[in-house]
Amino acid sequence: MALHPDRLFPIETDARLIARRLFGAVERLPIISPHGHTDPWWYAKDEAFPDPASLFVKPDHYIFRMLYSQGIKLEDLGVPRRDGGSVETDGRKIWRLFAKHFHLFRGTPSRLWFEHALETVFGIEDRLTERNADTLYDRIADRLNEPFMRPRALYRQFGIEAISTTDAATDDLAAHDSILESGWDGRVVPAYRPDAVIDASRIHFATNVEEFVKLAGTKLDYAGYLEAHRVRRAYFKKRGATSTDHGHPNARTANLSSSEASALFERVLKGASAADADLFRAQMLTEMARMSTEDGLVMQIHPGSFRNHNAEIFERFGMDKGADIPRATNYVEELKPLLDAFGNDTRLTLILFTLDETSYSRELAPLAGHYPALRLGPAWWFHDSPEGMRRFRELTTETAGFYNTVGFNDDTRAYLSIPARHDMARRIDCAFLARLVADHRLDEDEAHEIAHDLAYRLAKQAYKL
Amino acid sequence: MALHPDRLFPIETDARLIARRLFGAVERLPIISPHGHTDPWWYAKDEAFPDPASLFVKPDHYIFRMLYSQGIKLEDLGVPRRDGGSVETDGRKIWRLFAKHFHLFRGTPSRLWFEHALETVFGIEDRLTERNADTLYDRIADRLNEPFMRPRALYRQFGIEAISTTDAATDDLAAHDSILESGWDGRVVPAYRPDAVIDASRIHFATNVEEFVKLAGTKLDYAGYLEAHRVRRAYFKKRGATSTDHGHPNARTANLSSSEASALFERVLKGASAADADLFRAQMLTEMARMSTEDGLVMQIHPGSFRNHNAEIFERFGMDKGADIPRATNYVEELKPLLDAFGNDTRLTLILFTLDETSYSRELAPLAGHYPALRLGPAWWFHDSPEGMRRFRELTTETAGFYNTVGFNDDTRAYLSIPARHDMARRIDCAFLARLVADHRLDEDEAHEIAHDLAYRLAKQAYKL
Amino acid sequence: MALHPDRLFPIETDARLIARRLFGAVERLPIISPHGHTDPWWYAKDEAFPDPASLFVKPDHYIFRMLYSQGIKLEDLGVPRRDGGSVETDGRKIWRLFAKHFHLFRGTPSRLWFEHALETVFGIEDRLTERNADTLYDRIADRLNEPFMRPRALYRQFGIEAISTTDAATDDLAAHDSILESGWDGRVVPAYRPDAVIDASRIHFATNVEEFVKLAGTKLDYAGYLEAHRVRRAYFKKRGATSTDHGHPNARTANLSSSEASALFERVLKGASAADADLFRAQMLTEMARMSTEDGLVMQIHPGSFRNHNAEIFERFGMDKGADIPRATNYVEELKPLLDAFGNDTRLTLILFTLDETSYSRELAPLAGHYPALRLGPAWWFHDSPEGMRRFRELTTETAGFYNTVGFNDDTRAYLSIPARHDMARRIDCAFLARLVADHRLDEDEAHEIAHDLAYRLAKQAYKL
Repeated sequence: MALHPDRLFPIETDARLIARRLFGAVERLPIISPHGHTDPWWYAKDEAFPDPASLFVKPDHYIFRMLYSQGIKLEDLGVPRRDGGSVETDGRKIWRLFAKHFHLFRGTPSRLWFEHALETVFGIEDRLTERNADTLYDRIADRLNEPFMRPRALYRQFGIEAISTTDAATDDLAAHDSILESGWDGRVVPAYRPDAVIDASRIHFATNVEEFVKLAGTKLDYAGYLEAHRVRRAYFKKRGATSTDHGHPNARTANLSSSEASALFERVLKGASAADADLFRAQMLTEMARMSTEDGLVMQIHPGSFRNHNAEIFERFGMDKGADIPRATNYVEELKPLLDAFGNDTRLTLILFTLDETSYSRELAPLAGHYPALRLGPAWWFHDSPEGMRRFRELTTETAGFYNTVGFNDDTRAYLSIPARHDMARRIDCAFLARLVADHRLDEDEAHEIAHDLAYRLAKQAYKL
Repeated sequence: MALHPDRLFPIETDARLIARRLFGAVERLPIISPHGHTDPWWYAKDEAFPDPASLFVKPDHYIFRMLYSQGIKLEDLGVPRRDGGSVETDGRKIWRLFAKHFHLFRGTPSRLWFEHALETVFGIEDRLTERNADTLYDRIADRLNEPFMRPRALYRQFGIEAISTTDAATDDLAAHDSILESGWDGRVVPAYRPDAVIDASRIHFATNVEEFVKLAGTKLDYAGYLEAHRVRRAYFKKRGATSTDHGHPNARTANLSSSEASALFERVLKGASAADADLFRAQMLTEMARMSTEDGLVMQIHPGSFRNHNAEIFERFGMDKGADIPRATNYVEELKPLLDAFGNDTRLTLILFTLDETSYSRELAPLAGHYPALRLGPAWWFHDSPEGMRRFRELTTETAGFYNTVGFNDDTRAYLSIPARHDMARRIDCAFLARLVADHRLDEDEAHEIAHDLAYRLAKQAYKL
Repeated sequence: MALHPDRLFPIETDARLIARRLFGAVERLPIISPHGHTDPWWYAKDEAFPDPASLFVKPDHYIFRMLYSQGIKLEDLGVPRRDGGSVETDGRKIWRLFAKHFHLFRGTPSRLWFEHALETVFGIEDRLTERNADTLYDRIADRLNEPFMRPRALYRQFGIEAISTTDAATDDLAAHDSILESGWDGRVVPAYRPDAVIDASRIHFATNVEEFVKLAGTKLDYAGYLEAHRVRRAYFKKRGATSTDHGHPNARTANLSSSEASALFERVLKGASAADADLFRAQMLTEMARMSTEDGLVMQIHPGSFRNHNAEIFERFGMDKGADIPRATNYVEELKPLLDAFGNDTRLTLILFTLDETSYSRELAPLAGHYPALRLGPAWWFHDSPEGMRRFRELTTETAGFYNTVGFNDDTRAYLSIPARHDMARRIDCAFLARLVADHRLDEDEAHEIAHDLAYRLAKQAYKL
């Protein structure tokens, strides 16, 4: 294998040469990672990562969902069971199983991310096979003990300038405090993710809300609940947070009168109907937008995932097990209440994501190409891939331009995939730009400026990092 | 900059050479512009256009929507307020603001149209920047006073053979009469656009209908109302109209009994519910189709725009301010009543447009590839762009072929963009054909014939121009 | 014309060379045709095909729908009328009409399939024109009398290894018995298609069900009805069937209690409401999945066609006349009841097809990339075309990989198009792979393995052929 320097570039000669020049100028730019799911304790404790299977297989739902789809049991991949049922603990056995089925990842971004990490972090240029599984396991395992493989050293090696974690509204952010107190010069900031105290369809919602207002020192009524959000947002902001994040099943927003909203709050606390839970989530997006105009936190909406679609897997293994399935999402009608209230407010930056690519050219680009408050987040989750990122640019640029987008988010739980993902995004953006230069839609000096903006400036600016 | 002769062609060498040959043979064909929004008084009065800002910025919602999306006030761009509130009137200041933010248009068709006009009409080969804004302003302003910059001279220079305007059903078509009486040999025809007397959700609907039947000399009942349409269609046809146009929020059609329809008409006149307004629009599409089978006017349906999505902008500036957002459109169920009545009638030509690209391969191409009455209009509005036009061909050709499409419509209010838009469409079609030749799906002699058809013959024939 | 050896390959030089190498290795692989609509009596009787018009025009809805869309009457194309009304019977006249309008097929797969058959089966390298129509008619007609033009000889010539027909649940499979008894070594197997005894919205539903249970020797109650399915599935299986096929208007599934299901059965037998018919179809998909876990028949769902959209054509000519129109299909919610029951069951192979391409990346790839029971069928019907097949790979591979897909299905009624369609699919897959190799997402040795899998192994394995 060995990573080819021209990978993911256009295959036409002229465009490839342009892409090389564009990429050469942005390849080494620092990484701004404004949205992701790495564990802040990694940076706080700076301990060695465990074995190769725990690094690459067990925690990565991109990896084990594909293996599961071909009949391999999650238990055999070491994915922990909720009920404490027994699962494979021998990292080497798990790794062998992964190696045996490595061909399943052909044509997927997981394959490219994995091999990028293998080569750039571990110096391994061989393709993983059943035969070399043990050798590669040992080489990785050995290296994991080295000091330069610790999270903080990797942060430096990866060229990260700033990274955001995602944290529950009730999190004490002790890890972030610990990082700040340590005097380490890495920049790891939290993001305010209040889903658990906003989504009344979750099982422990009422308890969550009680703890939430208690933590904030406010009353258990609607005004107190809103105030608790303000208190907690300030708490996050003080620890470096610049953004909030909202993962909802749809993009619905509402703007109820305060008496309606207050009555709704009382109802959902007692156990919400599906309709009330939906309306409450909708109302809270508008409230979050309102608070963002006050405290300046950038707001992100990640809608459209049918979470835990596989009931059996959810029961046995819990959330985030590769069984979240995208669904059609309507932004035009659903965002209108929020946009009527704050869409023209330049104090608000609302970044939209989608799992429904049909909305790129039909809804999202037209909305972001008009409303001052809106920006488009990059291709997300299943679409954070070479073809997915290419479609994002092809389907949004002509209507929204480049400057209503916000650069790249790696959105990952897999630390080693961070540089791989940014490398991929930069390559695909440079490839897209190179084609525009090659067919004379853009001059090369402009393409250079845009490549720099997409790789670095826009994320830094949009997320205020 | 300087327009590159190979712009928008395939970047692969062989295909590029083929595209050059195809385009060379159609580049200079006359322009048939069967659907657009130029002002007929331009041709009637033949006066000089005002300053550069009034030409390129103030009236072009593609331009000011993008600037607005990045926080620039419409007032500062000279967009007139409904309430007479003050707006910038200094064309030079507006132009400077546009120049300063010209980078926002990178990768958009607006950029390409603007530069085409700049070079071909004003001989300006420089890229607009903050620095050269004043110089370019002066060069354009000077030239606007020249006689060869008058609308009729440009009509000739652009190589227009026939152009259609779009006119309200109650319009007296005085401008068209004036053109006809002047003896000028340009061909400017009206199109019958009765939305204001069909859409009962509009504020002055009842008044509009009263004026409409009065103008036609018919009674204010359903039969009289239908008769008024016949009268006015004939009035338009006499002045050269060959088509009607219908801009509806959806593609819904209905075919009620005449007593139901009559009762519905009485209801909507008194103030329509949303459901009744929707049903009345639906019914009227079928009535319009029926009348087309009688008088031969080609029928166009432009559905799927959520008009005036931004309430605040609508209140302050009115319609067509870049705040119309596409929405998902269902053609399969919604067109069925009309198609059941007239889909097999070869006297009818019904041209469908869409803002929902998902319908290209799923609904529109299968429908147009079957029903004799149906044809597909070109990529529309947000999709009238290089990537949008490419997707249109890729997603419709395999099922509907080339001959169920109707060539290009520029659909523009911006006179100077007409040749730029036809140039772009011809290039993209030739690029598409060149790729089919290069991978041996088509022979080059056939591609030449198709290129000619798409650039000229199909529009002329479908619109009977 | 003359088929170009590089047709449908990438037009970039490097990628084209790679595609040549990949295709060269799979071009001659045997054809596995696991889903199609050829007539089993062809193989049983092995009689000569009639004239060219009966071979290429009259039975092919891809051909006559396009001609009809341009105003040519189906009667003039020899399509038989339901009511016995008179239609053209002179094959030569029909052929001339086809030839005169052959340009309509430019850019369509029908054109490519037709020319492939013309050249490879009849040795004709000329493009069909109005002028050479008679000559070509005679050359084809002459050849049709030759022994090597009989179905069994063509089966051999085409390199078919196994082919499945599609057969009603009540079919006695006499043709298949006759083939088996003849001792011929071709492999022609039936597929169980029970739509007529499952879809209660069909006119003769109750009668169909009565005959069905009678044939199976079971009772006319719900338990007897289910048992009849088991009996008939076993009957099919004994004659070589390895699969079932279900053509439903949507993807809805249900999993009612047996008392609810039984009551529903009683209701639909008496004349079903649309809602009950829909629910019964939904319930039966889950029952079919259950039976597949028992008897091992592979299950196929082909949803999302609005059948017989053109009422007038249906009335006059019946089903399958090119008037079936795709509609939006929701897999995420609709398949959930079935998936909750059997999605994790590795005894089930459920192959999903779609006419709604928006579901590829949004729903189907994420579902198939997770559930062990799911696989994706190839691009179907309107999308079984070069661009359609390319989109299928581009939109599914990154999430579902190659190994959750099942190779190619020709799905055809047109015998001569079988090798043409497999040739096209192999070329497009090799072209797709070649691009992945050319931009270094895949190594060429892997691409060779995948090309072989897609052309041969996956279909054989998924369909147990």
